[in-house]
Amino acid sequence: MKIIIAGGDGFCGWPTALYLSKKGHDVAIIDNFSRRKWDDELHSNSLTPILTLKKRVEKWKELTGKKIEVFDGDLNHYDFLSQVLKHVSPDAFVHFAEQRSAPYSMIDREHAVFTQVNNVVGTLNVIYGIKEFVPECHLIKLGTMGEYGFPNIPIEEGYIRIQHEGREDVLPYPKQPGSMYHLSKVHDSHNIMFACKTFGLRATDLNQGIVYGLYTDETALDTALTNRLDYDGVFGTALNRFIIQTAVGHPLTVYGKGGQTRGFLNIKDTVRCIELAAEHPADYGEFRVFNQFTEEFSVLDLAERVQKVAAEEGMPVSIDHLKDPRVELEEHFFHAKHTKLEKLGLEPHLLTEDVIRDILHTVINYKDRVIPENILPTVNWR
Amino acid sequence: MKIIIAGGDGFCGWPTALYLSKKGHDVAIIDNFSRRKWDDELHSNSLTPILTLKKRVEKWKELTGKKIEVFDGDLNHYDFLSQVLKHVSPDAFVHFAEQRSAPYSMIDREHAVFTQVNNVVGTLNVIYGIKEFVPECHLIKLGTMGEYGFPNIPIEEGYIRIQHEGREDVLPYPKQPGSMYHLSKVHDSHNIMFACKTFGLRATDLNQGIVYGLYTDETALDTALTNRLDYDGVFGTALNRFIIQTAVGHPLTVYGKGGQTRGFLNIKDTVRCIELAAEHPADYGEFRVFNQFTEEFSVLDLAERVQKVAAEEGMPVSIDHLKDPRVELEEHFFHAKHTKLEKLGLEPHLLTEDVIRDILHTVINYKDRVIPENILPTVNWR
Repeated sequence: MKIIIAGGDGFCGWPTALYLSKKGHDVAIIDNFSRRKWDDELHSNSLTPILTLKKRVEKWKELTGKKIEVFDGDLNHYDFLSQVLKHVSPDAFVHFAEQRSAPYSMIDREHAVFTQVNNVVGTLNVIYGIKEFVPECHLIKLGTMGEYGFPNIPIEEGYIRIQHEGREDVLPYPKQPGSMYHLSKVHDSHNIMFACKTFGLRATDLNQGIVYGLYTDETALDTALTNRLDYDGVFGTALNRFIIQTAVGHPLTVYGKGGQTRGFLNIKDTVRCIELAAEHPADYGEFRVFNQFTEEFSVLDLAERVQKVAAEEGMPVSIDHLKDPRVELEEHFFHAKHTKLEKLGLEPHLLTEDVIRDILHTVINYKDRVIPENILPTVNWR
Repeated sequence: MKIIIAGGDGFCGWPTALYLSKKGHDVAIIDNFSRRKWDDELHSNSLTPILTLKKRVEKWKELTGKKIEVFDGDLNHYDFLSQVLKHVSPDAFVHFAEQRSAPYSMIDREHAVFTQVNNVVGTLNVIYGIKEFVPECHLIKLGTMGEYGFPNIPIEEGYIRIQHEGREDVLPYPKQPGSMYHLSKVHDSHNIMFACKTFGLRATDLNQGIVYGLYTDETALDTALTNRLDYDGVFGTALNRFIIQTAVGHPLTVYGKGGQTRGFLNIKDTVRCIELAAEHPADYGEFRVFNQFTEEFSVLDLAERVQKVAAEEGMPVSIDHLKDPRVELEEHFFHAKHTKLEKLGLEPHLLTEDVIRDILHTVINYKDRVIPENILPTVNWR
């Protein structure tokens, strides 16, 4: 299968590209390297040193004989995107190429506008590009579990059957996103749903939970293939951040009570979910939604799990409850369905103490690279 | 009350500005005259000749002694908007200033991207401008009934109580918009809902139906105050378009079977609804939604009503069922609630044969201005 990975230089995109390449697919990457530029803007870095994409794919070729073609450009530039689509003629287009940090989108008005325009226009261009040049291509779009917000009823996978005043319909699940970034993903979802219905495109929206972990079998082959790892208050996500805080002896930073409950998955499951979606494409005209996570934890749960492993490893660490910089419920009902990917064959890598320990051991090697002033949250929702 | 009308040169904005000015409010208009520019782009025109906004407000001053300040600029330019907000310090900000044609948004990719960026960024700027400079200002935002699409259950005003697996919540009503334009309004609604919750803003989203009519008491005072009237396949809406087709002896153009049912209201009710929203502002932190229409009709109903009046006036006209250029259901369930504005005091101007007759008589005066090749739809959704 010919597969484009847009955002293939990023934390999820890079291991996905390698995994699909290893599985025998013909993989091409589109990236404009904006994730690296945001590190420069924020005076931040990946905990792990990462090579340029050019060097990464050269090493991959050297180790496996497999070629990954790279297109350096921006989905917001339609002429560029058109050329790539015509050149590659992909069977599947995996779209990771968005600004994906909620705090980044909440820095100020300009970052909010940038995030929404970048993400929405990029996705509109992909929609029109597929319609115009490769109408049979299956769009696999990364959404987020954060699109749903935290309703007081169980969260379904994209749609919900509603009975109302003696009538019934299956309707898009109501969305209550909690940041300008999460809003951009909701906008994308509505746009893609319309495109499927109106233009006959086929798309899978993967509402992904919070990803943890670092290595996949492929990125572990050589240090030149190492994946990026974020720990800062803007791009770092819970669990990875807690483990890195442990490594440098920083208290684990839980926002508020820590009762915020989220869906989580291992990066090893992310890459497999993309494969499953690609192998089982949506029908023409279908906007299919999968919830892509494997387990639910509260943030405090996670911190306590990390704390326990840390103590066993002789690295005791405390938990700091910071005033929550976000506007969110610190305790709430949360139960979300996630059966569709498992029905297609996903076998989850669950979060055991050994998994935490493995990540911790890896992270310790790089702890001197941590920039301490980036650890605490600096962006306030209000 | 100090009220800004953004889009105050347009079909709804201009009569709203005059009406609120007459009621003693201190009215200022923001407009970038893009509606007039789109006429140039499409080689189209208003059926009625309209003066420049400068001349319109001069005449208003001359007739009533009331001053309407005009700010020529674009909401997408935040520095401009900031200056106006600081200068006027409005109590209410009425936001009509969007690209409001579904067919225009469906011309091609560039028009889709333009519509979404123009509308979404304009509204984001208004949100951040109010937050930064006038946090007590009440945002009155024009949405559209088209945000809801056509579910098989009754449409509520913004929110719906859902029981699911033994639990219950009141959630945003699911949205199924039918064009890139309608999608932009859904994006706006989500963005504003978030801003109310997160920044403590107060906003009323008016999901307006299709507006018909031309004159209000104020625009009828002098031909210099005449409102614009659209009849073309891109900006002309049902009823007004049918009446104008009658005047020029063109068959009434019903798309498909004509079973498409929509909410309608008279322009005289539009201006009153804005006043009611302004007089009864939302609470801080509240995102309030009103469905702003007074009656439901199918498109074929409307055509037949116009046909009946036309026959009585000695102007027989036929009805042409064109192949529907849109992707939409030609027959469907539709029942939408619209009680909140009536509870605040709205007394609807219903669509009687006399109302159709009055509009027809007015329109006949201008029929020589019709550009015949603009009447038929030229934009296809597919």
